[in-house]
Amino acid sequence: MSKKNPGKKSANKMWGGRFSAATHARMEKFSASVGVDRRLARHDIAGSVAHARMLAAAGVLSADECKRIEDGLREIAAQIERGEFEWSEAHEDVHMNIEAKLTEMIGDAGKKLHTARSRNDQVATDMRLWLREEIDRMCGALGALQRTLVEMAAKEAATILPGFTHMQCAQPVTFGHHLLAWNEMLQRDYERLRECRARANASPLGSAALAGTGFAINREMTAAELGFARVCSNSLDAVSDRDFAVEFCAHAALLMVHLSRMAEELVLWSSDAFAFVDLGDAFCTGSSIMPQKKNPDAAELIRGKCARVCGNLSALLMLMKAQPLAYNRDNQEDKEALFDSADTALACLEVFAEMAAHMKPRRENMRAAAARGHATATDLADYLAAKGVPFRDAHEAVGKAVAFALENNLELAQIKTEDLRRFCPAVEDDVQAALSLEGSVGARDHAGGTAPAQVAKAAKAALQLLDARKEAGE
Amino acid sequence: MSKKNPGKKSANKMWGGRFSAATHARMEKFSASVGVDRRLARHDIAGSVAHARMLAAAGVLSADECKRIEDGLREIAAQIERGEFEWSEAHEDVHMNIEAKLTEMIGDAGKKLHTARSRNDQVATDMRLWLREEIDRMCGALGALQRTLVEMAAKEAATILPGFTHMQCAQPVTFGHHLLAWNEMLQRDYERLRECRARANASPLGSAALAGTGFAINREMTAAELGFARVCSNSLDAVSDRDFAVEFCAHAALLMVHLSRMAEELVLWSSDAFAFVDLGDAFCTGSSIMPQKKNPDAAELIRGKCARVCGNLSALLMLMKAQPLAYNRDNQEDKEALFDSADTALACLEVFAEMAAHMKPRRENMRAAAARGHATATDLADYLAAKGVPFRDAHEAVGKAVAFALENNLELAQIKTEDLRRFCPAVEDDVQAALSLEGSVGARDHAGGTAPAQVAKAAKAALQLLDARKEAGE
Amino acid sequence: MSKKNPGKKSANKMWGGRFSAATHARMEKFSASVGVDRRLARHDIAGSVAHARMLAAAGVLSADECKRIEDGLREIAAQIERGEFEWSEAHEDVHMNIEAKLTEMIGDAGKKLHTARSRNDQVATDMRLWLREEIDRMCGALGALQRTLVEMAAKEAATILPGFTHMQCAQPVTFGHHLLAWNEMLQRDYERLRECRARANASPLGSAALAGTGFAINREMTAAELGFARVCSNSLDAVSDRDFAVEFCAHAALLMVHLSRMAEELVLWSSDAFAFVDLGDAFCTGSSIMPQKKNPDAAELIRGKCARVCGNLSALLMLMKAQPLAYNRDNQEDKEALFDSADTALACLEVFAEMAAHMKPRRENMRAAAARGHATATDLADYLAAKGVPFRDAHEAVGKAVAFALENNLELAQIKTEDLRRFCPAVEDDVQAALSLEGSVGARDHAGGTAPAQVAKAAKAALQLLDARKEAGE
Amino acid sequence: MSKKNPGKKSANKMWGGRFSAATHARMEKFSASVGVDRRLARHDIAGSVAHARMLAAAGVLSADECKRIEDGLREIAAQIERGEFEWSEAHEDVHMNIEAKLTEMIGDAGKKLHTARSRNDQVATDMRLWLREEIDRMCGALGALQRTLVEMAAKEAATILPGFTHMQCAQPVTFGHHLLAWNEMLQRDYERLRECRARANASPLGSAALAGTGFAINREMTAAELGFARVCSNSLDAVSDRDFAVEFCAHAALLMVHLSRMAEELVLWSSDAFAFVDLGDAFCTGSSIMPQKKNPDAAELIRGKCARVCGNLSALLMLMKAQPLAYNRDNQEDKEALFDSADTALACLEVFAEMAAHMKPRRENMRAAAARGHATATDLADYLAAKGVPFRDAHEAVGKAVAFALENNLELAQIKTEDLRRFCPAVEDDVQAALSLEGSVGARDHAGGTAPAQVAKAAKAALQLLDARKEAGE
Repeated sequence: MSKKNPGKKSANKMWGGRFSAATHARMEKFSASVGVDRRLARHDIAGSVAHARMLAAAGVLSADECKRIEDGLREIAAQIERGEFEWSEAHEDVHMNIEAKLTEMIGDAGKKLHTARSRNDQVATDMRLWLREEIDRMCGALGALQRTLVEMAAKEAATILPGFTHMQCAQPVTFGHHLLAWNEMLQRDYERLRECRARANASPLGSAALAGTGFAINREMTAAELGFARVCSNSLDAVSDRDFAVEFCAHAALLMVHLSRMAEELVLWSSDAFAFVDLGDAFCTGSSIMPQKKNPDAAELIRGKCARVCGNLSALLMLMKAQPLAYNRDNQEDKEALFDSADTALACLEVFAEMAAHMKPRRENMRAAAARGHATATDLADYLAAKGVPFRDAHEAVGKAVAFALENNLELAQIKTEDLRRFCPAVEDDVQAALSLEGSVGARDHAGGTAPAQVAKAAKAALQLLDARKEAGE
Repeated sequence: MSKKNPGKKSANKMWGGRFSAATHARMEKFSASVGVDRRLARHDIAGSVAHARMLAAAGVLSADECKRIEDGLREIAAQIERGEFEWSEAHEDVHMNIEAKLTEMIGDAGKKLHTARSRNDQVATDMRLWLREEIDRMCGALGALQRTLVEMAAKEAATILPGFTHMQCAQPVTFGHHLLAWNEMLQRDYERLRECRARANASPLGSAALAGTGFAINREMTAAELGFARVCSNSLDAVSDRDFAVEFCAHAALLMVHLSRMAEELVLWSSDAFAFVDLGDAFCTGSSIMPQKKNPDAAELIRGKCARVCGNLSALLMLMKAQPLAYNRDNQEDKEALFDSADTALACLEVFAEMAAHMKPRRENMRAAAARGHATATDLADYLAAKGVPFRDAHEAVGKAVAFALENNLELAQIKTEDLRRFCPAVEDDVQAALSLEGSVGARDHAGGTAPAQVAKAAKAALQLLDARKEAGE
Repeated sequence: MSKKNPGKKSANKMWGGRFSAATHARMEKFSASVGVDRRLARHDIAGSVAHARMLAAAGVLSADECKRIEDGLREIAAQIERGEFEWSEAHEDVHMNIEAKLTEMIGDAGKKLHTARSRNDQVATDMRLWLREEIDRMCGALGALQRTLVEMAAKEAATILPGFTHMQCAQPVTFGHHLLAWNEMLQRDYERLRECRARANASPLGSAALAGTGFAINREMTAAELGFARVCSNSLDAVSDRDFAVEFCAHAALLMVHLSRMAEELVLWSSDAFAFVDLGDAFCTGSSIMPQKKNPDAAELIRGKCARVCGNLSALLMLMKAQPLAYNRDNQEDKEALFDSADTALACLEVFAEMAAHMKPRRENMRAAAARGHATATDLADYLAAKGVPFRDAHEAVGKAVAFALENNLELAQIKTEDLRRFCPAVEDDVQAALSLEGSVGARDHAGGTAPAQVAKAAKAALQLLDARKEAGE
Repeated sequence: MSKKNPGKKSANKMWGGRFSAATHARMEKFSASVGVDRRLARHDIAGSVAHARMLAAAGVLSADECKRIEDGLREIAAQIERGEFEWSEAHEDVHMNIEAKLTEMIGDAGKKLHTARSRNDQVATDMRLWLREEIDRMCGALGALQRTLVEMAAKEAATILPGFTHMQCAQPVTFGHHLLAWNEMLQRDYERLRECRARANASPLGSAALAGTGFAINREMTAAELGFARVCSNSLDAVSDRDFAVEFCAHAALLMVHLSRMAEELVLWSSDAFAFVDLGDAFCTGSSIMPQKKNPDAAELIRGKCARVCGNLSALLMLMKAQPLAYNRDNQEDKEALFDSADTALACLEVFAEMAAHMKPRRENMRAAAARGHATATDLADYLAAKGVPFRDAHEAVGKAVAFALENNLELAQIKTEDLRRFCPAVEDDVQAALSLEGSVGARDHAGGTAPAQVAKAAKAALQLLDARKEAGE
C-alpha cells in the first residue's frame, strides 16, 4: 500500500497473505518494474494462453475455465494494443498486472491460472519469446544493410581506393573490396545471432519457482504451442539462467563495434581531408553557430552508441556475477540493458543502411589519394622479388628509393627508371606497369584478393548467401 | 530526404542555410536528443538569461531586446513547468526548441540571442549547472543515510555481532562498529563528490564553438550570474571536456559498490541462515507462488543496480576514448549515462536510508552466532603472546586447540582449562576472561577499535561532522 | 634516436630502408611485443613452414631454399623449446625475431620467406592457431569438471537440499538437481566455445598486408597444411578482424560468471551459517592472525578472477571500437587480454574440478535447513489447488498459515491439522504427506523437475553426452 | 604440501595449526600471490619496522628483540634489492615469505613480529605506501609532459591551425591554443591524483584482522613513522576498503582517455591526409612488407593502451561489488589491475612526453588546411551580426553564401564582395579583414580565447603553475 494507509497490510499484493505491514510507498515505486517489463505483455499473454491450455489438457482447469481465461487474456491484449490498459505500479510487474486484471474480469478462473507456475519461469519464458522475435528483426535489418553494401560492392569492384594501415596509405585496393570487408564482419554477426537464437529457443515453462511442480504438467505441450524447439533440461537452471541475455548483448556489442568501425571510416572519408564520399544532406546536420558546417552526425552517433551497448554488456555480466541460484531480485535489472542493446543496435543498423544507400563515392578523390603515398612500393618490392632478389633485400632497396622520393618530393612512380636502378639494379623497363594502380590491384587475383575480378566474384557469392537467407526467412 | 517533403530543403532547421536536401525522417528521429536533454531546460534558460544580460552589458543587445528575451524565456520556463511546452524532434534538442519558440514569441530579438555562443558551450554550461544541483541533492541524501547509520551505531555501540572475513566467523565486533564502517565508506563518497563539484564549477560560456568569439564578451559576468567559481581556461577544452561527467559517474559507481556491499550484508543478515536483522515488511516483497516467502527485494535491487551504474561509467569512458578535439556528435550519448547514474544512485540512497530506519537488529541471534565459530581464538593467542609466547607459536598452539574443539564438537570457551593447557602450557586460570565476547571486544580499546567506548566516541565524532555539513549547507 | 647510437639509422630493423633516424630507446622498449607474443612462436613457425612449402609449390622458392627454411625453422623451434633462443626487443616481435634468426642461420633463403606475406596476416594466422588449441584444452577441462559434477549428481540424486530464491529458503530440491543446474551452465559454455572455434578456423594467410598479393599463391594449400577448414574470404577483413578474440573473451567471461556463481554458493555452503559442505583442508587456507580460521580461498579466488576476465572483454571491445580498417598498432594490445582470459579460465576450471572432487556434502545439515523455513508452503498451496481451491486463494490462505506459524515459532509441518484448517478449510488428513520434504521433491516428477527419479535420469543423459564428446575428441 | 605427501598436514604454513590435510599442489600454485605482491616488499618491510618499533615502545617487544627484527628486515631488504632473496610459493605471499625468512634468521623474535597485526592491515598498509609513491612518480611524469606542451604552446601561440568539430574544419585556432587544451586535461588529472593521494594517506595499521587488537598499541606512532597524515577511523573499514585502488584506477583511466584523444590527433595529424606534424623516425616504425610505411606506432599504442586501463577499472569495480565485509580472498585480485594501470599510465606519459618533444609542426600545411573549408564563415556571420543583422538571419545568409561557394568551387574569402552582398546586403568593403585567418583568431581576444595574445598569456600562467608544483615537490 502506501503512505496513506501506514498500518494497512499489503492486501492488494497477490502474495500478501503472510505480510502484516504494507509496502512502503518509496519501496513500491523503487521496485516496480512494470514501466519497463510491460513491453513483454504480448509474450506474457501468449505464454499464459499456452499454460492454460496445457492445464486444461492436464485436467487442472476445466474446458470452460480455460476458455474464459483465453477470452479474458485476448481482451486484455486488445486493450493493451489500443493503449487502454491501465498499468499499476502497485501490481509491480507485467505478470501481476495482467493476472490481476484477468481475475477482476473473469473471477475465480483467473485465480487458477497461476497454478503450477511462478513468475520465475514466466518471465524467463517471456524474455526468450521476446528475444527470438528481436533477433529475427535484427537479422532482417542486418540482411538489408548487407545487401546494400554488397550491391554497391559489385558496382565498385574496380574503383581504386587507397587501402590504409596505421591510418597511413598502404596499398591500393578497390572500393568494392573494402565494402565486402564490411560485409564479412556483418556476416559473422548474423551467424552469431542465429546460434544465439537456437540456444535460447527452449522453454522454461514448468520450472515453476525453481524445482518444478507437483501437478501433472506437460512441458512439451507448452513448448510446442510457443514454438520452442525443446524444453529446458533443469528447472533450477531455467529460472536462474540469463545466458541468453548476456550472449545476445555480447553479440550486439560486437556488432556495434563493427558499425562503429564502419562509421569511423565514413567520418574520415567525408572529412575535408579525405573527401572520399559525400554522405548527402539527408544524413548530416549543421551547426548552430558555424554556417558552413555539414557534419556526419549519423555516423558519429552510431560510433557513440557503440559505447552504451558495450556498457550494457558490462552491466549484465556484473549483474550476474556471483549470484547464488536460483532467482534473485537483482535480475529485474536485466531487462533495460537487454532492451536498450536490441533497440540501439536495430536503430543503428537501419540508419546505417539508409545512409549507405545515400552515400556517393567521390571516385576521383579516392584515386588521387591512392596515387599519392607511394602506395605501390610493395609492388616494386614484389617485382624485384619476382626477379630473384630476396624479398628482405628488395624491401630494403625500395625503402631507400622511397627515401629518395621523399627528399625530391616525388611519388615512386615518378622516379625515372634509371634513378630507380641506382637503388634496385634488377629494375628493368617493365617496372612502370608494376607501379600503376590498376596493375597493383589487378595482380592480387586470388581468393580474397582485391583484384576487380575477385571482388566481382565475391560480391556475387555474398549476394547468393543473402538470397538464400531471405528465402529461408532468416 | 524527409519522406513527407522529398526535395524540400532543411528550411525548418536553424542551421539550414547551406543545405539543399531535407533531413531524412529516420535520421531526424535517430538524431533528435530532445527526449533526453529537455531535462536541462531550466538550466538552459538560466544560461540564456545570463548570456543575454552580458550581451546587453556589452552593447550587443539593447536593453529592450534583453528584456524581451528575459521575459520570453521566463514565459517558456513557465510553460515547461506547467507541462504545456510543445517539444519538437524537428528542432533536435532542448537548445533549439527553446530558441525557436523564443523567436516565434518575440521575433528578431530572439534571433540575436545566439550571438557569441554555440550549442557547444551552451550544452557544456547546462550540464555543469545540472550536475552541481544533482551533487548537492546526492550529498543531502548521503548525509541522511549516514545520520541514520551513525545514530543507530551510537545505540548499538555495545551490541555483539560476529565479524566475518572470508564469510567465516572471525572475531566478535559490535554492531555499532560495523555500522560505522559503512559510514566511513559513505564519508569518502561525500568527499569525492564535493571535490568533483568544485572542479566542475567553472563556466564554459564564451567558448562559443571552440575558439572563443570576436564579440567583446565578459565571461566573468556570466560566470558570476550563474554562480560559477571561475571561467574555463581554454575554449577548445571547455567544449570538448566531459571530465566532469566521467568523474561524477566514477564516484557514483564507487558509491553504488558501497551500497551493494551493504546490501549484500543485509541480504545475508536477513536470511534464515543468519537471521541477524528483520528488514520489516515494508521493504520486502513476497512470491507469486511460494506463500511463505519474504524477500529482501530492496536490498537485492540496490545490489543489482550497482551494475548499471558501473556499466554507465564503462560506456562513458569508451565514448570519450580517442575522440579528437573539439566537439563530436558522439557526445550526445553522454547524457543518458550521466542522468541514469545520478537518478539510480539517488534513488538507492533514499531507499537504503528508509530501509535502514526500518531495520530491526535481532541481537540475540547476533550474539549466539558470535559465540559459535571459535571467534575468540585470536584472543587466546593474544593472551598467550602477552604471557611471552612468541605470537607465531601461540597461533600454532591455539590452532591445535581449535582442531581439538572441532573433533569434540566444542566451542573454544567450552574446553576445560586443563585441556587447553595441553596445547598451550602458558594458560592460567584467568584465561576464560580473555575468551568471553565482551572481554574480546572490550579489549580492542584504541582509535578505530571495536571496543564499545571507542564506538561510542567514533559515533559522536561522526555525528559532529554531519552536523557541520548540515550547517554549511553541504 | 637510440641513446647509444645517436644519429644512427634503424638499420637493425628489417623495415629500416626508408628511415634516417634510429628508434628511440624508450620507444623500442615501449613498443616491443616479443615479451608477450613469443608465446605464439610454435604457431608462427608452423605457419612459416606451411607458407614456405606453398611458395615452393608455386615456384617462388626452390625446393632447396624451402628445405633450408624448414630445417632452419625446426632448429629454431628446438632452441625455443629448450629455452636457448635469445629473444631481442630490438627485433620487436616474435615474427621478426624468428625471421632474423633464420636469415642469420641460412642466409638469402631466409630473406625470401617473407615473400607474399606480411606480419598482418602472419599474426592473425598465429592467433587463430593458438586459439584453436586453447579452446580444445578448455573444452577438455570443462568436460572434466562436468563429469565430476554429473557423477556426484547421480550419487546425490535423492539428497534433500533447501532450494533458495532471494537467498531465502524457497522449496526443497535435491543436491543432485542443483549440481545438474551447474552442469547445464557449463554445457552452454561448451557449445559456445565449439561454435567460436568453428568460426575462427579459417586461414588469413595470403591476405598479406591487406590487399592480397601479386604472387601466384595457393591459399587453400596453406589452409589445408595448417588444418584450417577454409580460407578467409576477404583480405582486408582478414587482417583487421579480431572477432575471434572478442568472441572467445566473451565466452570466457560468461564461463567465469558461471564459475563465480558456483563459487559463491560454495562460499555460502561452507560457511558456519550454512555448513552444507566441507571443502576439505586441501583447498582452504588459514589466517595469519586468527588460529581457528579455515577459509574457502579457492572459491573466493575464482569468484574474484571473474572480474579480470570480464575486464579483459571490456578492454578488447574498447580497443576495437572505431578503429578504421585495416591493421592499426592498437591491436598489439589484443594479446594480453586474450591470453589472460584463456589462462585464467583454464586454471579456474581445473581448480574447481579438483575442489569439487574433494568436496563432502553434509547431508544432515542440508536436510535440517530444508526442514526449516516453511519450505513446503507451496506444496500446501498446491495441495489446496488440487482440491479445487483457486491457486491465488490457496496462496493467500497458506500465507496466513505461515504468519500463524511465525507467531507461534512453528514450522508449517508442525501446525496441527485442525489449526491448518482454520486458514484452509479444504485441508484433509492426507495433508502431512504433502508437507514432507520427500513428498515435495518426489512430486516434481517431470522433465527438468527435482524428483530423484528425474535427477537420476538427467544425470545419465548428461553422462552420455560427455561420453560422446570424449569419443569425438572434443 | 603437495601431491607427494597427501597425508601430511600444512605444517609449513604459518597458519597450519588447525589443519589436518596439506594444501593441494594445484591450489598452492593457484592461490599463491607472491609472484605479484613481492613488488610490495620494500613497503612491507617499512611497515614491519614501524610496527616493531611501536611494539617495543609499547613494551610488547624488548629493545633487543626490536633491534634484531630491524636488522633482520634490513638484511632481507638488501637481499631482495640484490635479487638474492628466494621467494617461495609455499609461503603464499610477500608477507609470509618475509616473516618466514626473518624467523629463520633471528628465531623467536621473528615469531613475535606478527603480534597485534594481521595480513589484512599489513597488505592495506603496503598498498597505500606503494600508491603514494606511485602517484608522486606519475605526477612528476605528468608535469614533464605538461611542461613540454606548454613550452611548445608558448612558441606556437600564433601558428594557425584549423580547429575541428565533427572532424570537419570549423574555425581557425592557433596550434598553441590546441596544445594548451591538452594541458588543461592533464592539469585536471594532476588535481585528481593529488586528491586521491591525500585521501589514501591514512594508516590502517592497528586494525589487525578486522576488529583492532587487545594489545596497547599506538596507532599514531606507526602512522607518523610511515609518513601517514592520520590513522584510518574504523578497523573493519580499514581492512575491507579498496577505495584508494578504485579511485586511482578511475583517475588513471580518465588520464588514459586524455592521452588517447591526444594520440588520436597525432595519428590524424601525421597521416598523409592531414600532414600537420612530423613525428620523427624515432617514434615511428616501418612495415615488414610495405617499404614506404612510417607508422605512428607510439601514438597508436597509447590509444590502444587506454583500453586496458579502462578494463582494469571495470574489473576492480566488479571485484568489489557486493563483497560483504571485511576481507575476502577475492581482494587478492586487486593488485594486478592496480599495478598494471599505474605502470601503463606512467609508461604512456613518459613516451608521450618524449614523442611530443620530437614532434615537428608543419606550419604551412596547417595554415593551408585552415584556409580551406570556409573556416571563417562564423566570422562573416559575426561581422553581419555586429552590423545589426540578427545572428540567426546572419547565419542563414552566410549558409547560402557557402552553398554558392561550394557550387562554384570557391573558398568563402574568394567570393567577390559584390557576390557576397547578394546573400548578405549588409556586407561592406571591410569584410575581407573579417575573413582572414589572422583576423579571425586575433578577434577572439578574451580569457580562454584563441587570440595569440591570450594564448601567450595562458601559457605563461600554466608555466607558473608548473613551476610552483616543482618547487612544492609535487
